[in-house]
Amino acid sequence: MDRLTIIKVGGKVVEEAESLNAVLTQFNRISGNKILVHGGGRSATQLAGKLGIETQMVDGRRITSAEMLDVATMVYGGLVNKRIVAALQSMKCNALGLTGADLGLIRSKKRPVDKIDYGFVGDIENVNTRDLRILLNENVVPVIAPLSHDGNGQLLNTNADTIAAEIARELSNYYNVFLFYCFEKRGVLTDPDDESTMIFEMDALLFNQYQSEGIITAGMIPKLENGFRAKQHGVKEVLITNPENIITGRGTRLM
Amino acid sequence: MDRLTIIKVGGKVVEEAESLNAVLTQFNRISGNKILVHGGGRSATQLAGKLGIETQMVDGRRITSAEMLDVATMVYGGLVNKRIVAALQSMKCNALGLTGADLGLIRSKKRPVDKIDYGFVGDIENVNTRDLRILLNENVVPVIAPLSHDGNGQLLNTNADTIAAEIARELSNYYNVFLFYCFEKRGVLTDPDDESTMIFEMDALLFNQYQSEGIITAGMIPKLENGFRAKQHGVKEVLITNPENIITGRGTRLM
Repeated sequence: MDRLTIIKVGGKVVEEAESLNAVLTQFNRISGNKILVHGGGRSATQLAGKLGIETQMVDGRRITSAEMLDVATMVYGGLVNKRIVAALQSMKCNALGLTGADLGLIRSKKRPVDKIDYGFVGDIENVNTRDLRILLNENVVPVIAPLSHDGNGQLLNTNADTIAAEIARELSNYYNVFLFYCFEKRGVLTDPDDESTMIFEMDALLFNQYQSEGIITAGMIPKLENGFRAKQHGVKEVLITNPENIITGRGTRLM
Repeated sequence: MDRLTIIKVGGKVVEEAESLNAVLTQFNRISGNKILVHGGGRSATQLAGKLGIETQMVDGRRITSAEMLDVATMVYGGLVNKRIVAALQSMKCNALGLTGADLGLIRSKKRPVDKIDYGFVGDIENVNTRDLRILLNENVVPVIAPLSHDGNGQLLNTNADTIAAEIARELSNYYNVFLFYCFEKRGVLTDPDDESTMIFEMDALLFNQYQSEGIITAGMIPKLENGFRAKQHGVKEVLITNPENIITGRGTRLM
């Protein structure tokens, strides 16, 4: 099977012109099939603030009102996605920006209201691997924004880490998939302010332990949960790292 | 040669949920190869207003500051484009939202500063017909937002009427192209408040006459100039009409 590299970029990395350019330069160096999945939460929060829309987060996940969904659609599907595409095209990388609605790539279901009403948030039901494989065969580089659709015309906000994991998992039937979660730190740190505390390898047991000890919290939890699920379902390698180490392959390796 | 229908939708039609749905229902009925090009200027003006960014227009064309380009990227490439894509997907139409940066589809050059500095506005230099034809062959329906790129990483605002005309012209080497400019009126009217004054057929002479008499003004001028240029360069038929008449083929026919 061919190799496929899936890079998820998020955090500050994608939202400042300089660091974004650095990450895209690294991404452009990857040979073979590749997919970029991006976030953009900070820019969304910023735009929402300017428009007087309040941002509510629960455990690192965004509550998405109808107004906030429009903001997400504009920022993720428009601003961040198209800036990345234009930058990659300037590097002769044949990027194509996509949301989960385009080509019906990612169908999801609005999350049922339980203790929390997440609003217009979608849980993934189906990934259209056929059209993704056609694009990859044509040497197209998909750049995927964290939005899905329900098949009935409704766009839904969907966590970018989850999208990367689900695509990785589904495509592991056709490729040797290497999944990189890329953010501003060099890996998972036991002390977020000290890069020397990076964990080199982590299995589910260690993850549970760190989680119960409160060492791993907030936004890192869904990222790792997604990573472990991908690893357990056929993805060859899952690595949490920073842009500089996409090529070296250093970072926190999930086992 | 196969038939290809290119529909450009703009004006109020695309910016209200009900009329947008009506136009997409009509669009979905068109059989064979088709492309949708959309505007979104009113929503952009509205968002800019909320963000305190001033909108400046000269002869129906928008002056695009850096801030306004971000607004255009969010509204055209994000909000309007993805709403259309999600709606078409719900009708089982395999829509794919694109800007001119995606797949390097439309390369343009920032308009030189002459009497007027239009800012980040691009004049089209090249249309990537190869990738468009691959998509059409895969029964994909491109939905194109009015943005292009300069190949050096810069997105540029580009008139949707011009994009529709240039794509029509370039693809007329491969298809029998039918180009429809679709807005809220049933055609070009000599009295904008009276639909019974619709012009059934218009040639360049009549256009020049009406223009010099001040009967045709503002936003209609670039639309017609684009339409005539397309007609003169191989496009089979150019029609100015409303959504209801996409199927009937009634409206103002350019000769």
